[in-house]
Amino acid sequence: MRIALDAMGGDYAPAVNIEGAIETVSDFEDIDIILVGDELSIRAELDSKRCPPNRISIRHASQTVRMDESPSVAIRKKKDSSIRRACELVKNGEADGFVSAGHSGVVMATALLLLGTSNCVDRPAIAAIMPTLKAPFVLIDAGANLHCKPENLLQFALMGNTYCRVILGRSEPKVALVSTGEEDTKGNELTREAFKLLKEADINFMGNIDGKDIFTGNADVIVCDGFTGNVVLKTSEGLADALIKMLKREVANLTAGRIGYLLMKPALRNFKKKTDYDEYGGAPLLGINGTCIISHGRSTAKAIKNAIKVASDFAENKVYEIIASAIEKGIANHERIKVAKK
Amino acid sequence: MRIALDAMGGDYAPAVNIEGAIETVSDFEDIDIILVGDELSIRAELDSKRCPPNRISIRHASQTVRMDESPSVAIRKKKDSSIRRACELVKNGEADGFVSAGHSGVVMATALLLLGTSNCVDRPAIAAIMPTLKAPFVLIDAGANLHCKPENLLQFALMGNTYCRVILGRSEPKVALVSTGEEDTKGNELTREAFKLLKEADINFMGNIDGKDIFTGNADVIVCDGFTGNVVLKTSEGLADALIKMLKREVANLTAGRIGYLLMKPALRNFKKKTDYDEYGGAPLLGINGTCIISHGRSTAKAIKNAIKVASDFAENKVYEIIASAIEKGIANHERIKVAKK
Repeated sequence: MRIALDAMGGDYAPAVNIEGAIETVSDFEDIDIILVGDELSIRAELDSKRCPPNRISIRHASQTVRMDESPSVAIRKKKDSSIRRACELVKNGEADGFVSAGHSGVVMATALLLLGTSNCVDRPAIAAIMPTLKAPFVLIDAGANLHCKPENLLQFALMGNTYCRVILGRSEPKVALVSTGEEDTKGNELTREAFKLLKEADINFMGNIDGKDIFTGNADVIVCDGFTGNVVLKTSEGLADALIKMLKREVANLTAGRIGYLLMKPALRNFKKKTDYDEYGGAPLLGINGTCIISHGRSTAKAIKNAIKVASDFAENKVYEIIASAIEKGIANHERIKVAKK
Repeated sequence: MRIALDAMGGDYAPAVNIEGAIETVSDFEDIDIILVGDELSIRAELDSKRCPPNRISIRHASQTVRMDESPSVAIRKKKDSSIRRACELVKNGEADGFVSAGHSGVVMATALLLLGTSNCVDRPAIAAIMPTLKAPFVLIDAGANLHCKPENLLQFALMGNTYCRVILGRSEPKVALVSTGEEDTKGNELTREAFKLLKEADINFMGNIDGKDIFTGNADVIVCDGFTGNVVLKTSEGLADALIKMLKREVANLTAGRIGYLLMKPALRNFKKKTDYDEYGGAPLLGINGTCIISHGRSTAKAIKNAIKVASDFAENKVYEIIASAIEKGIANHERIKVAKK
């Protein structure tokens, strides 16, 4: 598999991106990397790391999109950005997929523009895998679409359902909709309308889910608009960090606690691994014609490596084609049910 | 202080509500309670607890609002609900404030209808106090308004700012707006418009806050619409629960870990207390003419007791009057700035 990596995207780019690329080729024999971005900086970084050059190549791009840029302006004005050039490699068949830890709104808009959406998909969505008390679940949309219509949420549910089957191996995923309470009457206009569509869809819809139940592991796929998804994802990350720090501080205040802490350390390490978002690497953009993995802006080299691995698996299993055909069937079924009811 | 308690609201009502009332009168000499709801059930519960009757009285209400009812229907059809009767006691001056763990949408609508909003306030908002790595912060709106306009968020910011000064004693609270990134350009239409208003307001506005930074303790007041606030509040509760359970399970898998766990137990207990929402009791509805405290549906007796204490403090310090005058000044200032700019 050949994966294009936006070398310039993310808070610690290009250094950690390139480190992640080097770790990838050393860990996985079947993945080659094309680093996309400013050739001089990339080459300097590669040279300093004394990397054997054979499985890592460079594609120059003269522009970098900043995190504070408006997507529409960046798309219009930066035709030679590392995001766009990486996406073009996928479009032209020179790469099997691309990974970016850059501005996720711009990555989404670029993929939409260059690769296009699958049939019956109006808006692509980010599907993030998150840990729980039991097994992990799929959160969709984790931040691509800040304005959604009820039909978008139906499409997200269908895509998330298929993704969960393929990637997490659940035969009949339980799908839930984020709202302010479990009851049908709870929520805002968007969720109440989406509830009706999801209820009629050919999925195992379990109804609304309240924030407090998101991490119980009772739902396999959790659907929401991208604003809410971004808030859920980031609040959880921030809170998990804060709780671990608070716990450490409590322990440091007690001598017995300090000994206890040392004895508990292997358990804490295991725990941290389970809740460590770096382990999951990146989240795919579902609904586009191609493989595009969006990584966290704060990605470490390990996260970049894992994101590249996700991209490679995604491309190898042709997941986007499976999703395209599932959603076409799902929407067709939905239309049939609607017509039959009339 | 006389506080009216909706005896029928919440998942474990009326038993825990009445237990909470009994604990309150035994812990606080200056708080009397009026239990509002079905007289027969309340009396049976009180009798079983052999409570000295002198500081707890009963006001009968024949109806109870269920959690799955639509607020508009409940308001129209249940004129003798425990929520409405409790609110009426405040309106008539028979109680200094009221507490309910029932349907928060109905509590909000009833308070709005019977007590009315302060001048310059279009919609009241729930202000929840939440723990962080440093000091606690105020989250506003924590769930009252699922549809908001930018002007509502400005009013929430002004109310939250004053509440934070009065209750948390911060002289110049740092106010932040929940969005999908720190940059001005991030977020949806609502947050982008609200950003402009907050920037011009007479508060210490620090800009957008991303979910990952909510629990760092850098902001004193965090502003959002009620749908987002409900999701932040409940997701945090659920995740804190899940993380503690995951940690315990990791520890149970190791013998050394188990000993460590025993040694760490006092630290864990302290930690749990800091992150225990029961400690905070209830959240006030800001912007109405009176004292109304909304408690969690899953309130325990301890949470009910703490909510009653919050109501009593709120009423004693006339917090709602302080907020009413602050927001009037804040909005007037804002209008002046707007006019001056034109």
